Amino acid sequence: MTLSELQQQIKKHKLDAFILTRNNRFLEEDILPEENLLRELTGFTGSAGRLLVFPQGGAVLFVDGRYELQAPLEVPPQIIVNCTTTQLRFSDWLKYKLPVSVAKIGFNPWCLGIREIECLQKELSRHKFIPLSGLDDKKRLSSETVKIFSHDIEYAGVSAEEKISAVLSAINNDNLDAFLITASDSVSWLLNLRSRCLPETPVMRAYALVNADGGINLFIDNPDFSEVQTPPFTVKPFSELPAALSLLKKKRLGLDFSSTPYIIKEWAARHKIFLIDTSDPCMLMKCRKNPVELSGIRKAHIRDGIALSRFAYWLNQQNPKQLSEKNIIDKLRSFRARQELFFSDSFATIAAFAEHGAIVHYHPDKEADRPFSEDSLLLLDSGAQYYDGTTDVTRTFAIGKPHRELIDNYTRVLKAHIHLSVAVFPNKTPGQKLDILARGELWKHGMDYNHGTGHGVGCFLNVHEGPVGISTTCSSTGLEEGMILSIEPGYYLENRYGIRIENLVEVIPDSHPGMLAFSPLTLAPYERRLINPELLDASEIRWLNQYHDRVFKTLSPYLNPEEKSWLKNSCAPF
Amino acid sequence: MTLSELQQQIKKHKLDAFILTRNNRFLEEDILPEENLLRELTGFTGSAGRLLVFPQGGAVLFVDGRYELQAPLEVPPQIIVNCTTTQLRFSDWLKYKLPVSVAKIGFNPWCLGIREIECLQKELSRHKFIPLSGLDDKKRLSSETVKIFSHDIEYAGVSAEEKISAVLSAINNDNLDAFLITASDSVSWLLNLRSRCLPETPVMRAYALVNADGGINLFIDNPDFSEVQTPPFTVKPFSELPAALSLLKKKRLGLDFSSTPYIIKEWAARHKIFLIDTSDPCMLMKCRKNPVELSGIRKAHIRDGIALSRFAYWLNQQNPKQLSEKNIIDKLRSFRARQELFFSDSFATIAAFAEHGAIVHYHPDKEADRPFSEDSLLLLDSGAQYYDGTTDVTRTFAIGKPHRELIDNYTRVLKAHIHLSVAVFPNKTPGQKLDILARGELWKHGMDYNHGTGHGVGCFLNVHEGPVGISTTCSSTGLEEGMILSIEPGYYLENRYGIRIENLVEVIPDSHPGMLAFSPLTLAPYERRLINPELLDASEIRWLNQYHDRVFKTLSPYLNPEEKSWLKNSCAPF
Repeated sequence: MTLSELQQQIKKHKLDAFILTRNNRFLEEDILPEENLLRELTGFTGSAGRLLVFPQGGAVLFVDGRYELQAPLEVPPQIIVNCTTTQLRFSDWLKYKLPVSVAKIGFNPWCLGIREIECLQKELSRHKFIPLSGLDDKKRLSSETVKIFSHDIEYAGVSAEEKISAVLSAINNDNLDAFLITASDSVSWLLNLRSRCLPETPVMRAYALVNADGGINLFIDNPDFSEVQTPPFTVKPFSELPAALSLLKKKRLGLDFSSTPYIIKEWAARHKIFLIDTSDPCMLMKCRKNPVELSGIRKAHIRDGIALSRFAYWLNQQNPKQLSEKNIIDKLRSFRARQELFFSDSFATIAAFAEHGAIVHYHPDKEADRPFSEDSLLLLDSGAQYYDGTTDVTRTFAIGKPHRELIDNYTRVLKAHIHLSVAVFPNKTPGQKLDILARGELWKHGMDYNHGTGHGVGCFLNVHEGPVGISTTCSSTGLEEGMILSIEPGYYLENRYGIRIENLVEVIPDSHPGMLAFSPLTLAPYERRLINPELLDASEIRWLNQYHDRVFKTLSPYLNPEEKSWLKNSCAPF
Repeated sequence: MTLSELQQQIKKHKLDAFILTRNNRFLEEDILPEENLLRELTGFTGSAGRLLVFPQGGAVLFVDGRYELQAPLEVPPQIIVNCTTTQLRFSDWLKYKLPVSVAKIGFNPWCLGIREIECLQKELSRHKFIPLSGLDDKKRLSSETVKIFSHDIEYAGVSAEEKISAVLSAINNDNLDAFLITASDSVSWLLNLRSRCLPETPVMRAYALVNADGGINLFIDNPDFSEVQTPPFTVKPFSELPAALSLLKKKRLGLDFSSTPYIIKEWAARHKIFLIDTSDPCMLMKCRKNPVELSGIRKAHIRDGIALSRFAYWLNQQNPKQLSEKNIIDKLRSFRARQELFFSDSFATIAAFAEHGAIVHYHPDKEADRPFSEDSLLLLDSGAQYYDGTTDVTRTFAIGKPHRELIDNYTRVLKAHIHLSVAVFPNKTPGQKLDILARGELWKHGMDYNHGTGHGVGCFLNVHEGPVGISTTCSSTGLEEGMILSIEPGYYLENRYGIRIENLVEVIPDSHPGMLAFSPLTLAPYERRLINPELLDASEIRWLNQYHDRVFKTLSPYLNPEEKSWLKNSCAPF
């Protein structure tokens, strides 16, 4: 489809505007390339964004701060880019920029959540938000058969039966007749099932309708369950979902309005179902990792650390002039792929040299490859899915001889990274309260970064997993023991370079009762040549030395003598 | 009045409960002792609190964390104390603890704000909140004549005419016919008038009805304006307020619902006035101090610093065994009273020795005086109103020989105090985001304090001035250049001691564009004998030495040789 074809359709439906999201019915970040209508229409390759299309031509692309520099480079000039972190939020843009004459705004009810539409409609009473019937996301969804496999109990830790019974308790506590779980990572977690449907996220894409009596209908297209033994559910194609819902007439159906497509609300109204908006019962349980998951995640990070150390040793041996971003990605993947229990990358590796680093989520696929032709920085953000855990790590490397400004700014980002890493806080402190501990360190030098400081991470699931997070807004979920988060402050100088330093951490009990702390999971040395110890306080140096000591002690038994000697150097105390 | 007399009245009105606040029609913290019905009925002497009274006997006193230890010591056993920071908030208590049978909850519409009643009614639809007609706060308000005096332009910086014209712009921008300003510090600020009506807050207690055409009616009882030249307003007794409002029939009247008694809403309804809830137009203007005010505030802090240094020198010369809390209060006041432009204390001095220090807002008036009979800490929180500025400072002194635990905990509170003092943050960052910079330092040691980290401060006005503040909640106002705040983390160990370290700071532009920072106004050395430099990082010691250097350089020219030599010692670099 082209933008002008979409505009024709908008005209045909007598709409004044149309909201095109990047989502399909699963409302999740990871989608298949062929499902990405937003990219097809605009060229925008980012992992989040939406387009407001007007029938007379013209469209506005809404992206967050990570894509502020990237989006205008990718889209044609007739598309205006609005960055929702530095300019107006989507709803504020509609409130302040949209003429009153734009009365009817259409959207695809498969591709936008109930909560969001209700909030928009409440805030913007002058405009009418109209779900377009007849639209579907189906024809873009892959029709290939997907093999479903079990996530073994030795990695999952808790059986599907136990999880289902916890969900049934929640359903009964809320006095519901059923709950429709629409988040595919929740469904995958609940049933301990996974698939290779998406290249980097091992979810099984399905909805689960859990009845209060324990019966489960699983809605999924083209599945192959031949490898799954005695599944505790009935498998149905998505086309049977309306009929299944119609049986709930006058019954109480639980739904998480934030993760459920608007179309379900329409169907429920048609069948007179009472919808109860309540949190997906899997969400918090999935977020608090169980002891078996935690043990697996720690082991996965040791293997990931070995791969990273081998990669870093290799990088150190190369003549930088003969390297390019694509080399880096291939080489890193080869080290990871040799690790036990490796399944896939956990997202498309960001290998961004020099000025590409300032494009927060740059990926060389879409641009000419960038050779390492000068002294600068390489920002490398990558991760892997292992059967026992998911990793996500960013290290920034000096390529050639780093000049003083780079060293000082890297050290400041490292200070921010350390300040949050050493935080101690009461149980259930919301992540948004912690953000300033990292960001405030950079503010002292007039520096900042246009993205969150941390996100939740799944266990052999989504690398970005809600509801926890650490950012200036939208992270009100309280942190609890066993949650996994990233800590990733950065600094980006347009046309010059980018710095980001990211560890995953586990939330652990602090020695003081009632208090929590972070324990780093990621095991990889920081870039020694970019650290100016004079800018570090004694307590920061102490933390850094302890961390490096742990990295060396944990990884060195697995390395060959050359790698080990390189790691020893990299981890030597300051 | 007694509690049982109030219960009789509640019965007579067929109410199931009654909310008694500590306020009168000005809804402000500072009131005259004889106006304090809450204290009369319960014995509670704190500066904030409310009582929920039931007709059958029984009552619940709601206090914040500052009074958690104090309130149960003061009230009779039949009154239950609920701390709104560690237990339930007032509205949550009503939601979760109140039987449904308590249908009708009365309140005095003079003594509770419109916003709060509307929020309560919205949140608690099962209960009905009923303004009791016939009640008044009048008979408790002082009927003495109050002399009103001008706050000279050399201190106020901006003329009443200029301020009124800014308020008129706001009124016209909002398309209002009039604005009723009910906060007496706003009225005092607007008209550059003050009085000695209250012992520690120089406000003139009045409402101002500002018409869009510039006409102003000032409602005040028993004023003496003989010393005020050509006042730009008409003076009327409060009894004429209803009649004046009745002239606004079908007109648009601006009101700040958070600072306006509920009774005004009732009158407005009677006269069919359209009420527009909007911020008091004086509030933010008053909060951003003008250059003349800032210069005065800085000078007032130098004089206050001289008085404090003389006091601290004196304290150092005494035999502690011969001291008591009351000595301290009298002596400190005598040093302040000798300073130029001294007007009054800015609140009742908190001089709390040893275990009294743990009672955050302890005042020896109410208890037997406490002699300094052992080695411990003296927490001294005090301030003054000078014609050119208001001060508020807490220092904690070692009395006798401090043991190691006291030193380490003082040093940790000092670290918290420094961490917030060095913060740099973007313009308009809400105070609540900064709270963790101080509090998080204590969390590292399992420590905390059950009060906010900072409050706004007026200029020769309220020592607690909204809307800015630094706390975990309720401080969403963005910080701007020229605002004055306190930074006062603490640590309290029940039955043992209390530590608090408080400076006032001015919000100043940082050297990085768009960023703000704090500059300390308070000039007084920290307690050297309580600092363990081994717990301080190099950057903290640098800050401490710079601050002490500034204290010494600024104050020493005004001190005699003995005092100067003591101060030099106290400010020597670590």
